[in-house]
Amino acid sequence: MSNPETIIKELKNLVDEMQAVICAEKILAWDLEINMPKTASRERAWQMSILSKIVHEMLISSKMQELLNNLRKKELFELLKTKDKAMVRELGRDFDKAIKIPTDLIRELTETTAQAQVVWAEAKTKNDFKLFAPHLEKIFSLKRQMAEYLGYKDSPYDALLDEYEPGMNTKTLDELFENLKKELIPYIKKIQCSNNMPNNTFLKQSYNKEKQLQLCNLLLETLGFDLKKGILEESIHPFTMGISPNDVRLTTRTDENNLFFAIGSTIHEGGHALYEQGIDSKLFKTNLYSGSSLGIHESQSRLYETIIGQGYPFWKYYFPVLKDTFKKELSDISLEEFYNGLNCVEPSLIRVEADEVTYNLHIVIRYEIEKDLMEKKLMINDIPKAWKEKMHNYLGVTPQTDAEGALQDIHWSFGAIGYFPTYTMGNLCAAQFYNQIRKEIPDIEQKLEKGDFKELREYLKEKIHQYGLLETPEEILQRVTGEPLKTHYFINYIKEKYNKIYSLN
Amino acid sequence: MSNPETIIKELKNLVDEMQAVICAEKILAWDLEINMPKTASRERAWQMSILSKIVHEMLISSKMQELLNNLRKKELFELLKTKDKAMVRELGRDFDKAIKIPTDLIRELTETTAQAQVVWAEAKTKNDFKLFAPHLEKIFSLKRQMAEYLGYKDSPYDALLDEYEPGMNTKTLDELFENLKKELIPYIKKIQCSNNMPNNTFLKQSYNKEKQLQLCNLLLETLGFDLKKGILEESIHPFTMGISPNDVRLTTRTDENNLFFAIGSTIHEGGHALYEQGIDSKLFKTNLYSGSSLGIHESQSRLYETIIGQGYPFWKYYFPVLKDTFKKELSDISLEEFYNGLNCVEPSLIRVEADEVTYNLHIVIRYEIEKDLMEKKLMINDIPKAWKEKMHNYLGVTPQTDAEGALQDIHWSFGAIGYFPTYTMGNLCAAQFYNQIRKEIPDIEQKLEKGDFKELREYLKEKIHQYGLLETPEEILQRVTGEPLKTHYFINYIKEKYNKIYSLN
Repeated sequence: MSNPETIIKELKNLVDEMQAVICAEKILAWDLEINMPKTASRERAWQMSILSKIVHEMLISSKMQELLNNLRKKELFELLKTKDKAMVRELGRDFDKAIKIPTDLIRELTETTAQAQVVWAEAKTKNDFKLFAPHLEKIFSLKRQMAEYLGYKDSPYDALLDEYEPGMNTKTLDELFENLKKELIPYIKKIQCSNNMPNNTFLKQSYNKEKQLQLCNLLLETLGFDLKKGILEESIHPFTMGISPNDVRLTTRTDENNLFFAIGSTIHEGGHALYEQGIDSKLFKTNLYSGSSLGIHESQSRLYETIIGQGYPFWKYYFPVLKDTFKKELSDISLEEFYNGLNCVEPSLIRVEADEVTYNLHIVIRYEIEKDLMEKKLMINDIPKAWKEKMHNYLGVTPQTDAEGALQDIHWSFGAIGYFPTYTMGNLCAAQFYNQIRKEIPDIEQKLEKGDFKELREYLKEKIHQYGLLETPEEILQRVTGEPLKTHYFINYIKEKYNKIYSLN
Repeated sequence: MSNPETIIKELKNLVDEMQAVICAEKILAWDLEINMPKTASRERAWQMSILSKIVHEMLISSKMQELLNNLRKKELFELLKTKDKAMVRELGRDFDKAIKIPTDLIRELTETTAQAQVVWAEAKTKNDFKLFAPHLEKIFSLKRQMAEYLGYKDSPYDALLDEYEPGMNTKTLDELFENLKKELIPYIKKIQCSNNMPNNTFLKQSYNKEKQLQLCNLLLETLGFDLKKGILEESIHPFTMGISPNDVRLTTRTDENNLFFAIGSTIHEGGHALYEQGIDSKLFKTNLYSGSSLGIHESQSRLYETIIGQGYPFWKYYFPVLKDTFKKELSDISLEEFYNGLNCVEPSLIRVEADEVTYNLHIVIRYEIEKDLMEKKLMINDIPKAWKEKMHNYLGVTPQTDAEGALQDIHWSFGAIGYFPTYTMGNLCAAQFYNQIRKEIPDIEQKLEKGDFKELREYLKEKIHQYGLLETPEEILQRVTGEPLKTHYFINYIKEKYNKIYSLN
């Protein structure tokens, strides 16, 4: 039997090179959004596709196969250190998937989605679902093929879910989403019938962009993001990118007529960015230098954005700072008015504009439609009808156009089927984690009120961030909260908060 | 015999992938200068070294060797199209060099220079040549080894020159530089004895940075650089980077107390950038998508910076624009005063601050020292003495410190030995090209005076830029001017211009 240390060392050398190219891919993606002249998008697609090809070839190389085959033998695997076990587990997962899917199918999917994104943008502008339908048909057909290659237990949708959220499946999601519907649909009706609708018009005044950006930088510092090891830029769609322990980048977008847009985006991306800065730097240059899953990543951004950033304790501390920046605009607004205005609940058509109470129902709709499409229970041409019905049934509002309906999100056009549920998992996890934090740090809210974010940040770093990909999402959740993913922490959080705001009981 | 078309197609596929990775390397280099948090420099060095390694492995792969071996067979080569011949020629050149040098030597050089750059910066700050000396010793020793592996005719320095300027050698350079010394040293003395020293203090007033930057953008547009397919940014050391036909980037630096710094840098980099935008886009994704050599590239930047950008016709057109931007600062200055002030000649210690008359003597000094070091006629520890003597003999000024002497340039610390002469080649070529332009476009100066830069730009594009690497530097020079590189066009240009400014005869 070979020496596992020697084999692991060889594997690490391969992984080191792969990771360097993956970093390069990220920098190209950043440059594309931030620096690149828009005329150069085709050349950039070419550069990025070659880098992807190189990473793919490294992953499925015969050397990699040989090393993984050896290391995955039970008697050898048992001898490995915890970190090396995780490395082999994750790399093996990637290898198995990569080897199962024919290169031709990947290429066809890449070409199909490249074209579909262009058509989607046009279809959305023209409000013409029929234009997009044949492309979506093709994408779902290719995704079904992919699911067959990957294999699944109950539904072909399971194979896709596992891409974005390892271990997640339709059986679990069906139950979580049914719970959410059962609780949220009547609760939203109750809120709508309340006589205590907060006013939020003051948020829609004109707010100077430069001042907003200064505030965003200050906010990140306040939350404890290290701006010496990262940067904040502006972009159309805010995003976060962890390139290395000393290079974590995030973007925000300012809207002159919506004060909370930039603040909310910055706190949200700040949550992602704190996760990235919190990963143990010893994991850098390995495949474990990454968040555990999309759902866990989203839990950190949503915890910061909604539970903290739309919470009373934070604004008790920060509202004076905000008021000092926008003296004239906010002169008549009290902390209570501000907090209530920030937390208006209103069923609406567009997911990205939804408040935290209605948000998950938007996800349920997408989940149900995606799953039915994958299982061939719904036809592409029937999506608009299904969308309208579900919107009406769950949220009580009905889109008049497909642009405000099934065409609103870009995700399907680039083949991200099975991605949406991770948003809701993020919300549920955030509430479940926060419930635990309140148990372990009973005075957490007094700390936030005083502007002390260190204990929260260090708790999250110690319990979640530092692990990177060492643990699976379920393992993290189980270790930190002692339970698998549940809906009632989220429901309780929502009811406790909004019962107060809307004077319900 | 195999079909050359089939082999060329295979070669092109390999080259396509190499070029994509080379583009990625450029984007990482750009990002390093412009976006990256400074704390991330070590990780970036790692990312870049892996990409270099990938390119190197692609170049020396057995597949590449097989294809090149086939295509370089005379009977097959003769059947190739002109463009494909050039592709094989250049790729063969790179392959031959790469295969000759042991990987260990490359690695040692990379490690040595990485460290040497840090020590050089410290040595320069502390004005301590002895600190840097052992590192420089090591670099020259490795470079001598490299020269032995590469092979050369007369001097080991020839092998290094060929890296930066294919076809150039010490025999030719010795002659060119002797000519320059013979002409320039007495001419500079003559200028110094003139009673007509222009005043240039007005250039050193305080000039608003924002206005300078606006002007730089305007200037690039005026010269015909397409800002839709490129960007201008600020950086400490101005540079140009051609990534793709739709993505050519350049930087400038503003100095509040030196009006011409940003303008001069922008026109200089603009010359490089116009070259990059002028390369035939059909060459993109091949190894021919590049300037012909450093010397030819520098000829374009210097032609724009000095012959055009410090010339009378240009300022006859542009001075009113400048005066309009800086009304108060330039209110008392006439066009003649401005032009003369811009063209002050003054022997000085620092190369990058030198005027166009004294500049090449700075290069001669570096050339003579580098060559003597490579040929072991000079010891590292004797550099400061040799430097001072030569400065005194050629320019009549003597540095008091090594920081202002042999430590002033970064080049040696990163192993760029044989690079400096390309600066002078650029100056000589620029004058030789411009002499030809005046013959072929006799009214060129009237055109410039009217702000018509199109004919100049199109001439350079048609005669030089579009060719990329299709032709060698000598071939370009021969085709455009009918001669190899000469010094007298430069000398004549200098004397014609400065005789007027300094009222010499």
